[in-house]
Amino acid sequence: MQKTQKAKVTPIWRKEARTDHIYRVAAEIMCRKGYEATSMNDIADAVGLTKAGMYHYIRGKEHLLFEIMSFAMDMVDQNVIAPAQEIADPEERLRVMIELHAKRILEVGGEVTILLEEMWALTAAHRRTIQSRKRVYFEMIRHTLQELAAAEKLRKVDPTVATFSLLGMVNWISRWYSRDGKLTVEAILRDFTEIAMSSVLRARTNEYGRKRSSAGGRIRVVD
Amino acid sequence: MQKTQKAKVTPIWRKEARTDHIYRVAAEIMCRKGYEATSMNDIADAVGLTKAGMYHYIRGKEHLLFEIMSFAMDMVDQNVIAPAQEIADPEERLRVMIELHAKRILEVGGEVTILLEEMWALTAAHRRTIQSRKRVYFEMIRHTLQELAAAEKLRKVDPTVATFSLLGMVNWISRWYSRDGKLTVEAILRDFTEIAMSSVLRARTNEYGRKRSSAGGRIRVVD
Repeated sequence: MQKTQKAKVTPIWRKEARTDHIYRVAAEIMCRKGYEATSMNDIADAVGLTKAGMYHYIRGKEHLLFEIMSFAMDMVDQNVIAPAQEIADPEERLRVMIELHAKRILEVGGEVTILLEEMWALTAAHRRTIQSRKRVYFEMIRHTLQELAAAEKLRKVDPTVATFSLLGMVNWISRWYSRDGKLTVEAILRDFTEIAMSSVLRARTNEYGRKRSSAGGRIRVVD
Repeated sequence: MQKTQKAKVTPIWRKEARTDHIYRVAAEIMCRKGYEATSMNDIADAVGLTKAGMYHYIRGKEHLLFEIMSFAMDMVDQNVIAPAQEIADPEERLRVMIELHAKRILEVGGEVTILLEEMWALTAAHRRTIQSRKRVYFEMIRHTLQELAAAEKLRKVDPTVATFSLLGMVNWISRWYSRDGKLTVEAILRDFTEIAMSSVLRARTNEYGRKRSSAGGRIRVVD
């Protein structure tokens, strides 16, 4: 596994790209061996740097973990929150958030997402920083569900329970998706988005995205 | 926190009950401090045993983790799989599995469930054992969804993606539920079951368990 990672190292001279690569490789090793059991040497070996070379980019192991988590939250900010913020309609905004977040995990690999749970290993200050960034995302989803509730589009469920359920489904992808599996990213994304949207939206809009192709007829609420 | 745990120790002389208590306390400490950073001394202190006394019950740290995971899977076997196996109707069986599993996590606390993800810390033999027990549960859910698909009650989604989505939602409860929070176990269970059932069942049966109380009218599929 480490050898495969080594072979992938390409001479990227931009510091930013190099650190992104270190984060991904380090996340993979930490998930496989455990955070505590992973040494800075393990990571240096895998990315093809000397230990001294690596300290040019990374200050230490806890700092590296914090940077990986920050990198994960940067991806959420840039690839999920920013595009979703442009969307006025709450149903469309929710669909875009679910789809983009799931897509990102499927494309980048789950390790970075899994490490977001290792809050215990952070210093108190770093933990507060990551916690508050997670909170911003959580509140954005919950606020969207509250808008849907006001429009009578949300099921009669507590928006907090619904938000956690959605986040559970999305984050869990990081623990089961395998690039070697039978399912394509496109097929997973399509099914997953339907499952997630249907879980919180009322029946009227339930067969989300399948309206045209549904064989059994239209769905509507009748008196 | 450790002092609270200490105060809870009651003189239970049955070895089985004492080990269950050790598992729960150890799981709480391992989740808070991390598995690697937790020592056998930390656990002995918290359960009010000498280190020697604890080795009467537990062979060592990896073995303790394996025992905690086995304890978690025993709970699934006894409290979820066994009662669900008695139910012939796949929709009712799924509902019971979701409800009982969620209830168990809400009642016992999430730590034991969270530790089920620490597969990297097990020996290869122990990992195979836990993996195959998880697989049995996974296949039972997937098989139930396949039965629902045959009865045209499942959404047009891959049963594997649907099974992972359900497991993600359920397992994630362990990471967000707080006994100090505003939501009662009953309220969470009711909303969570509706969210989970609706995520995979077609619209006809979507407002599961709310049919009688729905204000807007009945839901049906029309041509």
